Amino acid sequence: MSFGENNIHACSHHWSWDRLLEPVIHVAPGETVRIETNDPGGGQIHAASTSAELLQLDFSRVNPVTGPIFVEGAEPGDMLVIDILDIEPCGWGWSAIIPGFGLLADEFREPHLVLWRYDATGTSPVARHSAGRVPLNPMVGSIGLAPAAPGPHDILPPRRVGGTMDIRDMTRGATLYLPVEVTGALLSCGDGHAAQGDGEVCGTGLETALAVTIRIGLEKGVPLAGPRLSLPGPVTRHLDSAGYDVCTGIGPDLMTGARDAVRHSIDLLCAREKMAPEDAYILCSLAADLRISEIVDEPNWIVSLYFPRVVLE
Amino acid sequence: MSFGENNIHACSHHWSWDRLLEPVIHVAPGETVRIETNDPGGGQIHAASTSAELLQLDFSRVNPVTGPIFVEGAEPGDMLVIDILDIEPCGWGWSAIIPGFGLLADEFREPHLVLWRYDATGTSPVARHSAGRVPLNPMVGSIGLAPAAPGPHDILPPRRVGGTMDIRDMTRGATLYLPVEVTGALLSCGDGHAAQGDGEVCGTGLETALAVTIRIGLEKGVPLAGPRLSLPGPVTRHLDSAGYDVCTGIGPDLMTGARDAVRHSIDLLCAREKMAPEDAYILCSLAADLRISEIVDEPNWIVSLYFPRVVLE
Repeated sequence: MSFGENNIHACSHHWSWDRLLEPVIHVAPGETVRIETNDPGGGQIHAASTSAELLQLDFSRVNPVTGPIFVEGAEPGDMLVIDILDIEPCGWGWSAIIPGFGLLADEFREPHLVLWRYDATGTSPVARHSAGRVPLNPMVGSIGLAPAAPGPHDILPPRRVGGTMDIRDMTRGATLYLPVEVTGALLSCGDGHAAQGDGEVCGTGLETALAVTIRIGLEKGVPLAGPRLSLPGPVTRHLDSAGYDVCTGIGPDLMTGARDAVRHSIDLLCAREKMAPEDAYILCSLAADLRISEIVDEPNWIVSLYFPRVVLE
Repeated sequence: MSFGENNIHACSHHWSWDRLLEPVIHVAPGETVRIETNDPGGGQIHAASTSAELLQLDFSRVNPVTGPIFVEGAEPGDMLVIDILDIEPCGWGWSAIIPGFGLLADEFREPHLVLWRYDATGTSPVARHSAGRVPLNPMVGSIGLAPAAPGPHDILPPRRVGGTMDIRDMTRGATLYLPVEVTGALLSCGDGHAAQGDGEVCGTGLETALAVTIRIGLEKGVPLAGPRLSLPGPVTRHLDSAGYDVCTGIGPDLMTGARDAVRHSIDLLCAREKMAPEDAYILCSLAADLRISEIVDEPNWIVSLYFPRVVLE
C-alpha cells in the first residue's frame, strides 16, 4: 500500500470551518490519505517556551487543522465513514494550564507549561514527568467537516459535523461516522494528542504534531444525527492494570459535579502523593476519565473522575 | 474466617436515612459483617409480575436498605473505610422502565418489566435476554451513613455521606471511603445490581437481592469531602473484548448531551439490530457507560454512551 499520492502536508492548514475553503485534495470514496497535522499550538509553543509565554498565546492561531479534503460524490444527507488506520506522533509535545481556559479556570489562574519528549513506539509507551508517568495512546482531537451554515465557524467547539471533539478513543483502529452537510464533505483534521483522558479537564492533552492515515468511505443517503464511533476492542488496557482512585461530585448539576470530582481528585493527589496542584490537574487531564456514574436518582447526580494508579507507579 | 456472629438478615431494613434509627448491630473497627439485602423492589416485584403492575409500585417501599450498623468509636469528622470483600447475588432479578422515572422518562411513558434468572458463578457470567446478553458484575447500589441533619431523608438521592450512589464499580474488591456525620456512623446498604452501566440510564440495573460482606475500618479525624473509591484493578474487562459502539450528544448542556447520547444509541440499536426501543433502553442501562468525552471546548461539551458490542454476540 502506498500513500505517496495522497499525502497532505501540514502547511495546508486553516483555522476555521468554512464551506467556502478551497480543497487541497480531491479523493474518491475508499481512498486512503495520510494527513500531517501541525502542533496544536500552531507553532507558538516550542522546546524553549516558558509558562509566562502562554499569556501571549494568540488564540486565533491555536488548533490549526489540515485540509480540507474534497470527497468525490459526497452530498448533504450522506454519511462519511472514516477509518483511522494509523497515527504517527512526532515525539515532542506540551501540556498547559492556560488562564481562562479549562474546567477549573476560576481556581487555576496562573499559566503553567509542561514540555514532553516521548517515544511512542514499543508496546507500552509512556511520557515521564517528575509527578507521574502517563501511558500514551495517540489520538486525533479534531476531525470534522464543513457545516452547511455559512462560515467562518470557530475551530474550537465541536458540532453535528464533528470538529474539535477531543474524544479520547479516536485512536488507531477507530471508525468515525460523520453526517455530510456540504458537497464534497470538506474534511480536515488536527489537534493531535499523545495522551488524553475523558473530559480533557485542564483544557489540554499531551498536545503533539502527528500524521494520521485515514481511509475515507461514503454511504449515500444515510441520515445520521451526529458523530458516532465504532471501536474494535478494549479502550483502557493501557490504564487499568493498577486500578483507580475515584473521586465523586454529587448534586443536581452535572457541571458542578464534574468540577467537584476533579477538585477532590487534585486534593487527594496533593495530600497523598505530595503533588503540586498544577501537576495533579494536568495529570488528571492527560490520564483520568470523567464518567457519569448516576443520572437518575433525583435530584442528585454523580460525576466521578477515575484516576488510574498506573500513573503513580 | 467466620462471619457467623456478624450476619444481618434482610428483615432488618429501613426506607429512609435517619440519625435516630436504632442500630441492629454494634461492631468494632476492623470487624467483618455479612449483610443480606432485600430485592430493591421491596418485595413488590416477583417472578409472576407483569409490566402493568409497575403502575401500582409504592415508591415509599422501594430500595429498602439493611442496617443500620453502629461502628464503635466513630464520630463526626472521622472517615469510614469499607472494604467490599464479597458479593453473593441471589440468581433472580428484574429491570424496568417505570413511568416518570429514568433519563428518557418523557419518551418512555409505558411500563416495561424484564425478569431475569441468572447464574452468577463461573468466570464470565451473563444474563440472557432475547435482545442481547448482559455480562454480570454484581455491585451494591446503595451504601451510606446517617446524615447529621435531622431526618428522615429520602432513601433515593445520594448525598455527601453516600446512600443510593449507583456507582458501577462498587463491586467485590472495591474500597469505599465515607465521611462520618453522626456518632456510630450508622451504616446501611441495599439496592443490589447483578449488572449496571455508568449512568443507570433507564433508572434500573439488573435489580437483585444479594449478600454483601464488608470489613469496616475507621480512621479518626480524617476530613473527607464526599464519597471516594479505591479500585484494585481493571473495571471493564467483562465488557470490552468486542469493542464499543459510541454515540454522542453535543451541546452546551451536559444533561441534554447525556439524553441525546442515549437516544442516538437506542436509535442505532433499533435500526441495526432490529431491537424494540424498550429493550435497547434497558440494555443501555445495564451494560453501557455514560462518559464525559469533552468538557472544555466552549460552548459545546460532548457526552458519549459506550455500548459494549459483547452484548450483541
